[in-house]
Amino acid sequence: MRRIGLFDSGLGGLITARWVWMRRPKVDLLYYGDTAHLPYGDKSPAQLRGYVREIVRFLIAAGAEGIGIACNTASAVAVDVAQEVAAGLPVWDAIQPTLAYFRAHRLPEPVGVIGTYTTIRSHLYGRALSQMGYTVKELATPLLVPLIEEGWTKHPATRAALRTYLTELGEVRTLVLACTHYPLLVPLIRRYYLRRGQDVKIISTARLLAEAICSPLTDSGQKGSLTLWLSDPNPRFIALASRFWGSPLRPMPLPCPS
Amino acid sequence: MRRIGLFDSGLGGLITARWVWMRRPKVDLLYYGDTAHLPYGDKSPAQLRGYVREIVRFLIAAGAEGIGIACNTASAVAVDVAQEVAAGLPVWDAIQPTLAYFRAHRLPEPVGVIGTYTTIRSHLYGRALSQMGYTVKELATPLLVPLIEEGWTKHPATRAALRTYLTELGEVRTLVLACTHYPLLVPLIRRYYLRRGQDVKIISTARLLAEAICSPLTDSGQKGSLTLWLSDPNPRFIALASRFWGSPLRPMPLPCPS
Repeated sequence: MRRIGLFDSGLGGLITARWVWMRRPKVDLLYYGDTAHLPYGDKSPAQLRGYVREIVRFLIAAGAEGIGIACNTASAVAVDVAQEVAAGLPVWDAIQPTLAYFRAHRLPEPVGVIGTYTTIRSHLYGRALSQMGYTVKELATPLLVPLIEEGWTKHPATRAALRTYLTELGEVRTLVLACTHYPLLVPLIRRYYLRRGQDVKIISTARLLAEAICSPLTDSGQKGSLTLWLSDPNPRFIALASRFWGSPLRPMPLPCPS
Repeated sequence: MRRIGLFDSGLGGLITARWVWMRRPKVDLLYYGDTAHLPYGDKSPAQLRGYVREIVRFLIAAGAEGIGIACNTASAVAVDVAQEVAAGLPVWDAIQPTLAYFRAHRLPEPVGVIGTYTTIRSHLYGRALSQMGYTVKELATPLLVPLIEEGWTKHPATRAALRTYLTELGEVRTLVLACTHYPLLVPLIRRYYLRRGQDVKIISTARLLAEAICSPLTDSGQKGSLTLWLSDPNPRFIALASRFWGSPLRPMPLPCPS
């Protein structure tokens, strides 16, 4: 497998893509950012399933030999759609690697889970972790994606939003970042808990997804590439994509506007 | 004219709708909230023109005898599309009533204009006000819509975001709220300027649009109604719509998902 398709509602999934590429630089990554439908977090499952169907079709037509759903919201409501379209090709969703990690390690509880409205309302994390015997607290934190997509990863507004959300969540010993955007907020989250003298283990679904994608990939052949498509190639998104990826990116034209 | 169609990217336009209905309670309002494509502010003009075309068609098919574009972003990039589809029916956009107000009154300067990325990038306010001889400062303030749609109209995160944006805007004597959501932030904006001892006149495009729509409407006949459609009728949007409108609302089903 050399060509991996990855997609997200917007640009947050590029963080996962970067981690994959840092560990497996000889892979070709095909990334689709569905910026025309951003944010996914407050869309209904029916809408999202339609988007996922089209995107997976597109990535496979573009040559993807495996599909990574770098978005918890899409993973929560449309993994079966992705699998159906992928017709036997491997599909990695953003949720299973984290649940596998919880099965393999006993983590301190209570476990907090933060994500978008749709992810949290699916109760996929809450239900699975409860079945493993964990005490779980789930909270939707819908403003974090817009704050990150504004680039305000250290801004007082983001600190204030986190303070409200994490206070509402209450005491936890493990915190699951159930959104692939949230790794950019780890410094602020750590500071919040440090100031309160709380020792909280942070589990990043984006990083565990990246590791799951990397594990079957070999690291041979010539240097790979990143191909980027944006369903709405607005200049603002292009600038932000370059920032998330770490070097200048230019999206490829799409065959037809979706 | 008894039936007025109004639309917005989401629910912010309901503030305009409520003002119209408070002054003309015998009008039937047909409101379309395009929650499936929220937010409009960072979409490209080509995307937005497609959405506006479909929505105006839908509202006219539903019996609208005039169309109010209760969204500055859509007004900035697609008023010609709305007019073309409306084929002679009156179309009110969110920008012209404010420009007319500036023509009729000499307001203190510099004039600040805040709105979404797409509205500000259109420079429609900046150019028109400059031509009237005003010194104008424009600034995109893209997080304000997500903060309002979260209901955080008094939250420290919103205060922090406003502080950053209004500081970046710099000294102004008049501030144009070039987004129909922003009236909900007037208390925080007033407080920001009051604390700095600055006397700033606030111009709300949402209110001036409501007044423009009201002026040709008569107030006779029986009590009117509000009919609501949401392109994504997520429970969260339904709850928020009721809050913006001031009493419980339930969206009508759409003929087909858009």
